[in-house]
Amino acid sequence: MEALVLEKKDVLTLRDIELKEKLGPHDVRITIHTVGVCGSDVHYYTHGAIGPFVVREPMVLGHEASGIITEIGAEVKHLKVGDRVCMEPGIPDPNSRATQLGIYNLDPAVRFWATPPIHGVLRPSVVHPAAFTFKLPDNVSYAEGAMVEPLAVGMHAANKAQIKPGDVAVVMGAGAIGILTALAALAGGCSQIILTDVQQEKLELAAKLGPIRPVNVAKEKLLDVVNELTGNWGADIVFECSGNERAASSVFQPLRPGGVVVFVGIPLSPVPISIAEAQVKEARIENVFRYAHVYPRALALMGSGKIDVKPLITDTFAFKDSIKAFEYCAHMPATSVKAQIELPQ
Amino acid sequence: MEALVLEKKDVLTLRDIELKEKLGPHDVRITIHTVGVCGSDVHYYTHGAIGPFVVREPMVLGHEASGIITEIGAEVKHLKVGDRVCMEPGIPDPNSRATQLGIYNLDPAVRFWATPPIHGVLRPSVVHPAAFTFKLPDNVSYAEGAMVEPLAVGMHAANKAQIKPGDVAVVMGAGAIGILTALAALAGGCSQIILTDVQQEKLELAAKLGPIRPVNVAKEKLLDVVNELTGNWGADIVFECSGNERAASSVFQPLRPGGVVVFVGIPLSPVPISIAEAQVKEARIENVFRYAHVYPRALALMGSGKIDVKPLITDTFAFKDSIKAFEYCAHMPATSVKAQIELPQ
Amino acid sequence: MEALVLEKKDVLTLRDIELKEKLGPHDVRITIHTVGVCGSDVHYYTHGAIGPFVVREPMVLGHEASGIITEIGAEVKHLKVGDRVCMEPGIPDPNSRATQLGIYNLDPAVRFWATPPIHGVLRPSVVHPAAFTFKLPDNVSYAEGAMVEPLAVGMHAANKAQIKPGDVAVVMGAGAIGILTALAALAGGCSQIILTDVQQEKLELAAKLGPIRPVNVAKEKLLDVVNELTGNWGADIVFECSGNERAASSVFQPLRPGGVVVFVGIPLSPVPISIAEAQVKEARIENVFRYAHVYPRALALMGSGKIDVKPLITDTFAFKDSIKAFEYCAHMPATSVKAQIELPQ
Amino acid sequence: MEALVLEKKDVLTLRDIELKEKLGPHDVRITIHTVGVCGSDVHYYTHGAIGPFVVREPMVLGHEASGIITEIGAEVKHLKVGDRVCMEPGIPDPNSRATQLGIYNLDPAVRFWATPPIHGVLRPSVVHPAAFTFKLPDNVSYAEGAMVEPLAVGMHAANKAQIKPGDVAVVMGAGAIGILTALAALAGGCSQIILTDVQQEKLELAAKLGPIRPVNVAKEKLLDVVNELTGNWGADIVFECSGNERAASSVFQPLRPGGVVVFVGIPLSPVPISIAEAQVKEARIENVFRYAHVYPRALALMGSGKIDVKPLITDTFAFKDSIKAFEYCAHMPATSVKAQIELPQ
Repeated sequence: MEALVLEKKDVLTLRDIELKEKLGPHDVRITIHTVGVCGSDVHYYTHGAIGPFVVREPMVLGHEASGIITEIGAEVKHLKVGDRVCMEPGIPDPNSRATQLGIYNLDPAVRFWATPPIHGVLRPSVVHPAAFTFKLPDNVSYAEGAMVEPLAVGMHAANKAQIKPGDVAVVMGAGAIGILTALAALAGGCSQIILTDVQQEKLELAAKLGPIRPVNVAKEKLLDVVNELTGNWGADIVFECSGNERAASSVFQPLRPGGVVVFVGIPLSPVPISIAEAQVKEARIENVFRYAHVYPRALALMGSGKIDVKPLITDTFAFKDSIKAFEYCAHMPATSVKAQIELPQ
Repeated sequence: MEALVLEKKDVLTLRDIELKEKLGPHDVRITIHTVGVCGSDVHYYTHGAIGPFVVREPMVLGHEASGIITEIGAEVKHLKVGDRVCMEPGIPDPNSRATQLGIYNLDPAVRFWATPPIHGVLRPSVVHPAAFTFKLPDNVSYAEGAMVEPLAVGMHAANKAQIKPGDVAVVMGAGAIGILTALAALAGGCSQIILTDVQQEKLELAAKLGPIRPVNVAKEKLLDVVNELTGNWGADIVFECSGNERAASSVFQPLRPGGVVVFVGIPLSPVPISIAEAQVKEARIENVFRYAHVYPRALALMGSGKIDVKPLITDTFAFKDSIKAFEYCAHMPATSVKAQIELPQ
Repeated sequence: MEALVLEKKDVLTLRDIELKEKLGPHDVRITIHTVGVCGSDVHYYTHGAIGPFVVREPMVLGHEASGIITEIGAEVKHLKVGDRVCMEPGIPDPNSRATQLGIYNLDPAVRFWATPPIHGVLRPSVVHPAAFTFKLPDNVSYAEGAMVEPLAVGMHAANKAQIKPGDVAVVMGAGAIGILTALAALAGGCSQIILTDVQQEKLELAAKLGPIRPVNVAKEKLLDVVNELTGNWGADIVFECSGNERAASSVFQPLRPGGVVVFVGIPLSPVPISIAEAQVKEARIENVFRYAHVYPRALALMGSGKIDVKPLITDTFAFKDSIKAFEYCAHMPATSVKAQIELPQ
Repeated sequence: MEALVLEKKDVLTLRDIELKEKLGPHDVRITIHTVGVCGSDVHYYTHGAIGPFVVREPMVLGHEASGIITEIGAEVKHLKVGDRVCMEPGIPDPNSRATQLGIYNLDPAVRFWATPPIHGVLRPSVVHPAAFTFKLPDNVSYAEGAMVEPLAVGMHAANKAQIKPGDVAVVMGAGAIGILTALAALAGGCSQIILTDVQQEKLELAAKLGPIRPVNVAKEKLLDVVNELTGNWGADIVFECSGNERAASSVFQPLRPGGVVVFVGIPLSPVPISIAEAQVKEARIENVFRYAHVYPRALALMGSGKIDVKPLITDTFAFKDSIKAFEYCAHMPATSVKAQIELPQ
């Protein structure tokens, strides 16, 4: 089948590749419709590696996907041919201790699309376990379905925060993950988001999506805004989504006594953390790695109209223009949030 | 001052009553603007008692109140004269063990407005602790401010449920508390509410307020609707708000394995509960008594537009027509949800 | 192989039965050493059914088992031939939604030893998934290993309670499950247990096992003891282990404001519960169905000396006397807690 | 009255000081019996300050105290003259938001003994709120009562960890707080503690107190021990009690997926933390600042024999030798854990 293959660092080709996939009794076969381009896909393209994960063999890219079921395994009961679906890209070892405990995202043996050496899904079809395949509500498009994967990160972060209705949250970073975390936090009970970035365009786009107060930290002090909006009490939650070391070091400043910090963005190097500052507020700190159990929840909130991701899909490319799409994403303008690639049907 | 006094069962008068109130250093004095009529006010009027609380002396009614601050104590810092406010009606003993633990609503020594022998606030003014007085956001009216008290019950129920974003909840009972619990649960993260009652008018009113699926249990089976909407998995949460014994007995039926039941309504007599049915699903059951710590959260959600209580304020009476208001509430039509009384300013 | 077979209600035979068991790649084969007799085993013998579970075909009894591994599947890594082990008797469907969430004990498709139509393990050997087989610490005997199954119920109850160090707990019922719950709760952080029953012998046995205050409710009022030991504040936790309807109805009386009730015993019929009584204390109620994830924890506490179950093993029978053992258990003297059957090695 | 006064850095005197204390209706007067010497007392003596807290006026030292009640306020009900007691040294503002929420230890306005400018209790008597004064069980001595303050830190850490029965915990640092945290964690449900330090004497003392595996990190690798004791899964909890920056940086290494880190020790400068390392295990990180609500729990566990602090009281001085005691503590031998000072009765 024809796929978008990362041959090695900096070299993408759209070419035939042989992928033998057998449909097991608990699997489904899916024709891919839409695939979002993630920062990690672009990073493999431009750097050839992310931390310990190095591209040593040609690898198909893409893991934010939706499509339609064309075949089901003998034991599959909750899905049928013709169902429009989206898929969790990580498949854990069903016999691992982490999986048994329900924290399958932490299973070291997980096989995750477009993480070397596992192929991604910028290709016509894929075989996938039914247990990690989720039916789209009728009013959710394929494009929105392909947004569930990045939204799931924000949903998982909102879950970890254990939001109480009415909480005020700071979200640091207005990239795709930051804005999706803001939307998940609002849908999850927050009354107000304070969103920081230095890209004015992204802040302005986000500010239209709900009670989101944008703060351009190049022009305005976050602490002043938080103090004004919370009567000097501090924010209940700080979601760090920028991955920026300086931001990650400053998370306790806007926090209220007894508040929660959630680290979503992944800083590349160790961050100097003032434990004493965290202690005097008894901050609870949660750390997020991908997600678990949130796809049906994200779809339910999209289906009932509580989360609308459409304004974030700023760019759509045809599959034949995939390489152009990746070049575009490697130098994304500040007005773009998420680019997607549509496969021919 | 002139107040609405319940002289004894069935006898209301609008008359002068002497209420000596001294402003302490941590208190504020408030001119009352709006007072909602609660089912408990009406019950004291029509029955002279609720359980162990018996009206033995004339008592001023009313505890759902908003107003404006006219005087502040020497130590009050976060409020000022002219602030528009609403008030928590219960004042706990600051030295009790429950208060110290932060569960002040469970302090047996709490003094609660319009619960014998404590006077309520259907009267021109009141002195109240600043710590239990909350400033209204500019875009929240006095009428909405007086709705915070019943909304607080729903907010507290939503808190106890520990909603996860995307949960599906059943709310049993479409009275004021049921609908407000539905709104709190939606604001708190639920994707979908399934609301039951036998009054078609109330269900229709509620169905316009969000992703709320009305179920008239006289005509339709709740279990069928839950199974359809959850793929036979069951609801994540059941809020029992009707106080009806038969409803309270049936809460485990629509629940998913590992789900949560919250008892909000107060059944008058013991309810036959199948422990075995609760065990096979390992239901967690939470019980709600009034509320604690939720007023600022309710106001934040109203201020940011995530909760709109205005459609529930179906009837407004002038203070001079207070007795008429209570007669109306004692025989409330199915189209009414909440009646309020406005005091002259 | 020769097994203890319940042919039908009241009819036990020790006879050959053909049980075809194939060792899969994730399975182990175990030679059974010791099997405890559970109340449910006896109930199937004397009644032929428990609720919806009816014995329609001959069934091998026994599910509280320990043994030694004689063969391992190709993919098994954490166990080896010669390991002394105990086994969780319930095997869930790995593809079910409950299993995926980590609440595998609530999977309706679980296959549980000696629950019709699944055979138990009063027989020489069994094939079992390695993921549900646990190595015994060197200082834990086979007899103790066979106690892990009932202890797991108490451990799971202690988990559900979310004990805070220093909690005072009431345990209602001094049968095997009640005493094991008391031991689990003490190991899990309780400072003091108040244990109720009407069998003086059992109370006296239990009182020797730790800070356990026995209360013979035929002679003494539980509420008086709780008030004395907690300064009239109430118990932090009530574990209902008797399954007695009257006890289950009374759980809120000794509870403190904000306390927790855990229903462990299974009342046969619905229990009249005063919701209002639960609400005024905002009781959290947890319900226990078997257990999940606790075997390694129980073994760790036994291995480190924090839980000693040996005093509860009051009777040991040889396999050839299995039928006598069941007759004994059907009319157990008050001085007995747990009878076990040892298989020839 | 005669008190141990820190005149300024390095200058201690035992002299008369006038301390006017009025007994309010909710207060008690206590004759001090025993006062433990805390590292912070010694630090004020040798450095004149701890972070932002600077000794600018002569200040009485000591905050780990027990004594006997000699007078009670008019409203005090749960205590009486002659009661043997210990006291929480921090008194929060009852009207603060943190106090109302039940997190009174985080109230910035808290007045804490021997934290400038508040006087400590190395003096004959003190007036204290009854709500922060706790009766000693009959079998708990004054010396043990004065250990409740440092034990409370460990108890609070154990609380924050939300230990599940059978957890394995690493405790870093075998000073008084480290060992007391280990004892609290064992009493709170841990099956096994792995305790690290470089002082062999302290490790040996601690190893006798329960299932505590000492690891001298100068001679042995912590990770090897953890892997051996947990089958390469990792520790459920890591309590960092050393305050050492290098230790604090290494907390995620021995942790299991989904584990908990509790920062108890206070590193003086920011610590380089690998967020990515925390994320891949989704570590929950809790931070501890003093304690709240744990005194009665600590006393309950001491009273029932589950925690024995006596082996940690290695040195006792008479009040007249207080200065000598401080000099001793400023250069404490590795065989010492806790020094106490006894006042004349």
